[in-house]
Amino acid sequence: MTVSALNAAIGRINDVLCASSVLVWDSRTMLPKGGAATRAGQLATLAGLARDMLMSAETRRALDTARREVESAPQDDPWRRAVASVKKAIALHERVPAELIERKARLNGVGTQIWFKARAENDFRGFAPVLAEIVQAARDYADAVGWTEHPYDALIGLYEPGTRLSDLKALFAELASGIKPVLDQALGRARPRTEFLDTPFGEAKVHAAGRLLSETLGYDYEHGRLDKTVHPFAISFTREDVRITMRLGEKSFANSLFGAMHETGHGLYEQNVDPAYTRTALATNLIGLYAGGGASLGTHESQSRLQENHVGRSRPFWQAHFAAVKNALGGLDDIDADAFHKAVNTVSTGLIRTEADELTYDFHIMLRVEFEAALLKGDIKVEDIPGAWNEAMRRYLGVEVPNDLNGCLQDIHWSSGAMGSFCTYTLGNVMAAQLFATARREGEGVAEALERGDTTPLRAWLKEHVWRHGKRFGRDELLRRATGRPLEAGPYLAYLAGKYAEA
Amino acid sequence: MTVSALNAAIGRINDVLCASSVLVWDSRTMLPKGGAATRAGQLATLAGLARDMLMSAETRRALDTARREVESAPQDDPWRRAVASVKKAIALHERVPAELIERKARLNGVGTQIWFKARAENDFRGFAPVLAEIVQAARDYADAVGWTEHPYDALIGLYEPGTRLSDLKALFAELASGIKPVLDQALGRARPRTEFLDTPFGEAKVHAAGRLLSETLGYDYEHGRLDKTVHPFAISFTREDVRITMRLGEKSFANSLFGAMHETGHGLYEQNVDPAYTRTALATNLIGLYAGGGASLGTHESQSRLQENHVGRSRPFWQAHFAAVKNALGGLDDIDADAFHKAVNTVSTGLIRTEADELTYDFHIMLRVEFEAALLKGDIKVEDIPGAWNEAMRRYLGVEVPNDLNGCLQDIHWSSGAMGSFCTYTLGNVMAAQLFATARREGEGVAEALERGDTTPLRAWLKEHVWRHGKRFGRDELLRRATGRPLEAGPYLAYLAGKYAEA
Repeated sequence: MTVSALNAAIGRINDVLCASSVLVWDSRTMLPKGGAATRAGQLATLAGLARDMLMSAETRRALDTARREVESAPQDDPWRRAVASVKKAIALHERVPAELIERKARLNGVGTQIWFKARAENDFRGFAPVLAEIVQAARDYADAVGWTEHPYDALIGLYEPGTRLSDLKALFAELASGIKPVLDQALGRARPRTEFLDTPFGEAKVHAAGRLLSETLGYDYEHGRLDKTVHPFAISFTREDVRITMRLGEKSFANSLFGAMHETGHGLYEQNVDPAYTRTALATNLIGLYAGGGASLGTHESQSRLQENHVGRSRPFWQAHFAAVKNALGGLDDIDADAFHKAVNTVSTGLIRTEADELTYDFHIMLRVEFEAALLKGDIKVEDIPGAWNEAMRRYLGVEVPNDLNGCLQDIHWSSGAMGSFCTYTLGNVMAAQLFATARREGEGVAEALERGDTTPLRAWLKEHVWRHGKRFGRDELLRRATGRPLEAGPYLAYLAGKYAEA
Repeated sequence: MTVSALNAAIGRINDVLCASSVLVWDSRTMLPKGGAATRAGQLATLAGLARDMLMSAETRRALDTARREVESAPQDDPWRRAVASVKKAIALHERVPAELIERKARLNGVGTQIWFKARAENDFRGFAPVLAEIVQAARDYADAVGWTEHPYDALIGLYEPGTRLSDLKALFAELASGIKPVLDQALGRARPRTEFLDTPFGEAKVHAAGRLLSETLGYDYEHGRLDKTVHPFAISFTREDVRITMRLGEKSFANSLFGAMHETGHGLYEQNVDPAYTRTALATNLIGLYAGGGASLGTHESQSRLQENHVGRSRPFWQAHFAAVKNALGGLDDIDADAFHKAVNTVSTGLIRTEADELTYDFHIMLRVEFEAALLKGDIKVEDIPGAWNEAMRRYLGVEVPNDLNGCLQDIHWSSGAMGSFCTYTLGNVMAAQLFATARREGEGVAEALERGDTTPLRAWLKEHVWRHGKRFGRDELLRRATGRPLEAGPYLAYLAGKYAEA
């Protein structure tokens, strides 16, 4: 069973997309200020080349050959799946006219610049005109790609194939009614000490602690790096070179460290895709046109949330590793593991999504999905966003929004053309709990080792059931094979209720 | 006067070559060990794409249009020159068969790995078989490109267009007879104190001093970075982002600092190419297929040597800046500027090219050019290199070579396919002196400012006469326009004689 001509063609596309990713990584960690403009042009050229290569006669010929090669292969054969995913990607890109690709690329560049300025000046009106154009482009894109129930479904499908707005609505309703009482109860409790989370340790020491934690979680520095950035991310240039980033020099060293654990989860996924899939369609996102091997964005997020929250915010983890982290930081002598664990699990309603705790985070997502769907459908106008946002924050979390900077201007996503991706954060939370519960229950030695802060057996289970498969299976099939169940909110709600009842 | 279609086509090629250069920079400064293999494949794909784009029907059509557009432009019009250089590059690449390109690419990859191993084990026999293949490929390449006097001329022409082996031989003879007496005299003098050049200051402080020196020389950090590497280099991703590197953690901090000044010279050239040439054939090496704007490799080297030696090893420079450098390093309290200046101008015959001083360096080059020409012509066999090398080192510098590690295995050039490029180091030395002498003599305020350690007027002169022109003029034309003279050894010999007579 071989699809070597197709793999050769996709391999070259993967090379270009990996090069693109190196340029992106560099832009966000190393780039001198003055280099931003020409860098944007370089990325645009590489993106165009990768798309041209995917749509080329050569790739189509290789695809035709490969389709015959896999005809009699088992339905779940990896190369049969690779062939299907190339076919699907070509069909999708074929539906999007060149004019729209260029318009979206231009809007992403211009939009982000205008957003940065608008945010700095707390000026939503300055952002509104380009946002209206962005919404129109998203609408045109949805129409080009095609949809049946709701145009938003087409955008969601780019990140989380097969998921529709109606699925999200049902899930969100179940989550809201399940989380609300746990949240109310938690908010009623006394706040523990947290002021020590802001101890200023200096960048080098926080970096050392971040590195220690990522190594503890199994991230491989022979094939990776951990660098400073403003908005942390993980990125893959094939499984041989998967890089993670963290904030340094921020107020809370603890936020930096949990960010590092989050990106470690993404990194572990990419570092552990089956080596046989390297440079193939099973480790390349040909819809989004980037190098990387996850089943979906939500599945990827499940792996980061799992490491950050299920492992990283658990008491046994800190009982095992807090001494080493204190040593790396060189301080916190009067704080013990229990006090640290309590502090990093504090619950409070706030305005900012990226600072939200486990009980409030999903409400921020529900709000954004509600807005994106309404904007796309024309149910709300761009200029009405600020008022409606503030009303929604009252409705979802009972908080008052003092200004747009802390409200509807806080996220980069709309300006950068990522409309439709917010839901993957909550899908990731739900999947993380479902996978983690199964791993604890069924994984050999997983639960016992976790009690000692040792994630080695957990990693073995995740590698076997999630990581190694890359893009071989879609999210739902992956979940069914790993947990025997479809996506379901039960384990997530049980996890939250159990954790915050005991606190 | 516009060649916009051609500039658009070359602009896209430049984007790909800049991406390639980002990957090269990353490989040599940031890459985790395990990422090397897939990175090599990514670079190979980008190189192939850039070549395909250059040779494409689209570029040829744009070239045809552009040729008509510049028909009546003045002979030295930049866009007329751009058109000529694209035409020349396409013609050259057309002469090289695909088989040879692939063979050379494979040999460069394999050859470098084998060389690293052979060097580590001081085992020339382990390197000999692949070197024989490399020499054969170089011979085939020379035959494909074409030559009249000597096959080596074809290789030299890739780096220093228009220069032949016979030109080099005449130049080398003049240099040898001019430098030898100065060298003999200098070797007869007492050695000054130099032990403090090895003071261990730690990487951060040596980096800070390197940064200070590069800023003093005018390098722009809004469009650049200075990073740690093993073999220092400068690299350009358009003039908006030109990066330099330095050794850190080596025995001699002084070597690290002079390396930084050397790369600063390369960086200044790239940062000061006319902005109108960005992403055009006037800032892209379409023969070597890399982004960068110099007239030739030797011209580029002249700019690094000028900053490193004519500025950086001058007494007034250290009288002006040694206090600040000491401050950055945090030490050397008992050393004054004169003692430092003396120490960094010590002359001695040694085995290693990269450690050679100004009076011995060119002899290392003459030896290598002699060997490369003989290998190519078949006048010497690969297996006879070690003995012949040791004999030649006796002949050129009167030193005994104890082993191949310190002899014929010391340079990476042959293994990496850069046969023909060594001469550019000596051409750079010669040009540096010629340009520097002219700048001092004719440049407004240049000489006076240099006496105060201020290179601002020198920079203005170099920008006007060298840097801004990018690839508009070839080396000889640039020299004639800048100095009124062809390439000549006189100013270099006068500089060396003057400097080392006074010491």
